[in-house]
Amino acid sequence: MHRTKVRIVEDALDANNTIARANRDDFDRHGVTVVNFMSAPGAGKTTLLERTIASLDGVRAGVLEGDVEGSMDADRLSALHVPVTQLNTASGFGGECHLDANMVRSAIPELPLEEIDLLVIENVGNLVCPAEFRVGEDLRVMVSAVTEGEDKPLKYPLMFRACDLVVINKIDLLPHLDVSVERLEANVEAVHPGVPTMRVSARTGEGIDAWRDWLTKAATQVAAPA
Amino acid sequence: MHRTKVRIVEDALDANNTIARANRDDFDRHGVTVVNFMSAPGAGKTTLLERTIASLDGVRAGVLEGDVEGSMDADRLSALHVPVTQLNTASGFGGECHLDANMVRSAIPELPLEEIDLLVIENVGNLVCPAEFRVGEDLRVMVSAVTEGEDKPLKYPLMFRACDLVVINKIDLLPHLDVSVERLEANVEAVHPGVPTMRVSARTGEGIDAWRDWLTKAATQVAAPA
Repeated sequence: MHRTKVRIVEDALDANNTIARANRDDFDRHGVTVVNFMSAPGAGKTTLLERTIASLDGVRAGVLEGDVEGSMDADRLSALHVPVTQLNTASGFGGECHLDANMVRSAIPELPLEEIDLLVIENVGNLVCPAEFRVGEDLRVMVSAVTEGEDKPLKYPLMFRACDLVVINKIDLLPHLDVSVERLEANVEAVHPGVPTMRVSARTGEGIDAWRDWLTKAATQVAAPA
Repeated sequence: MHRTKVRIVEDALDANNTIARANRDDFDRHGVTVVNFMSAPGAGKTTLLERTIASLDGVRAGVLEGDVEGSMDADRLSALHVPVTQLNTASGFGGECHLDANMVRSAIPELPLEEIDLLVIENVGNLVCPAEFRVGEDLRVMVSAVTEGEDKPLKYPLMFRACDLVVINKIDLLPHLDVSVERLEANVEAVHPGVPTMRVSARTGEGIDAWRDWLTKAATQVAAPA
């Protein structure tokens, strides 16, 4: 009896996971695959979506755009005629440095879940806290720009460990940097053995087909409409 | 009477500012100028210190290195024979995404305050929370790498508003980016009118003399040994 009570209290205390499960149930009910998309500020998340989100083969995609303030990224993606919903952590959420399950829940009534197969949640640019909060996603993807240096997996291991895919962006700049993409990949492997990585340049388009294919497959393989 | 009591309670509740003032008193007593050095992950803070910290004219400098985990940056700076103290937020501070006054206070016994004129506190790489916590510093400097894009001041305005100087780094990469440094500077000015900026490349050394001069002047003009 005592043991059961303790377990219930612990579950209830972890409010974020409780709400994340409720979000997940809502997404599952509509057959929507959800990707939590994370990176440091300026790693290229929005550009990677601009390059792909409107041209996924047979997949209708939408975006939930998380920012502390402003709607610049949402405006960029709306121009592609993709449904985009803006979520600002500065309005009502104290300027938080990450999205949590409750923030995402507050946006669910605004999401066109009936009309999409894939929802990409673009998190606040931050390599620490976003990795600590499940929001109800199926998959987690992070972007690591080579311009940030090859040591980032070792300095922010939780983020790299939390992901199902690491997209290594800005490889067009490698000739101009003192950075080895091989050492970056070795550091990713050291903190998260076996996690898939892909090298891309959102600017030149190199590797973008593989990223588009990954998003398409994620939407069609994970989703199981009720 | 009532009014006085309320004020005292409010002051006491803001524990971070109370501790930051205590830190500041300790630094002042030793005539040490303190710079809180902030940026997104991988913007080049450590390289900017490597380029300058051991060659400040007449200024003895030390570094307090803040990271979630690891001591890679501290090891790089120790190689320059500068006193470096490591502060990890993962050990005892829950993996926080920023330094606060209490974390810095915990490191003060380890700092060689008698032997230095300038302490640079290299904060955790993050554009949100570090700006919210005073740690007892005299001055706040942030680094914005041009590779992060020109929109960062508009998306993370609190960080840009909190600073006494914005160092714009990685300008050697401008020929290879779709980024205008003039628009970046205009966005800095829009959110923090009048804040000084300087363009540098920690990689090529361009603009580094101005950054070294700024650190030297900060240490000699602010410090007022007791």
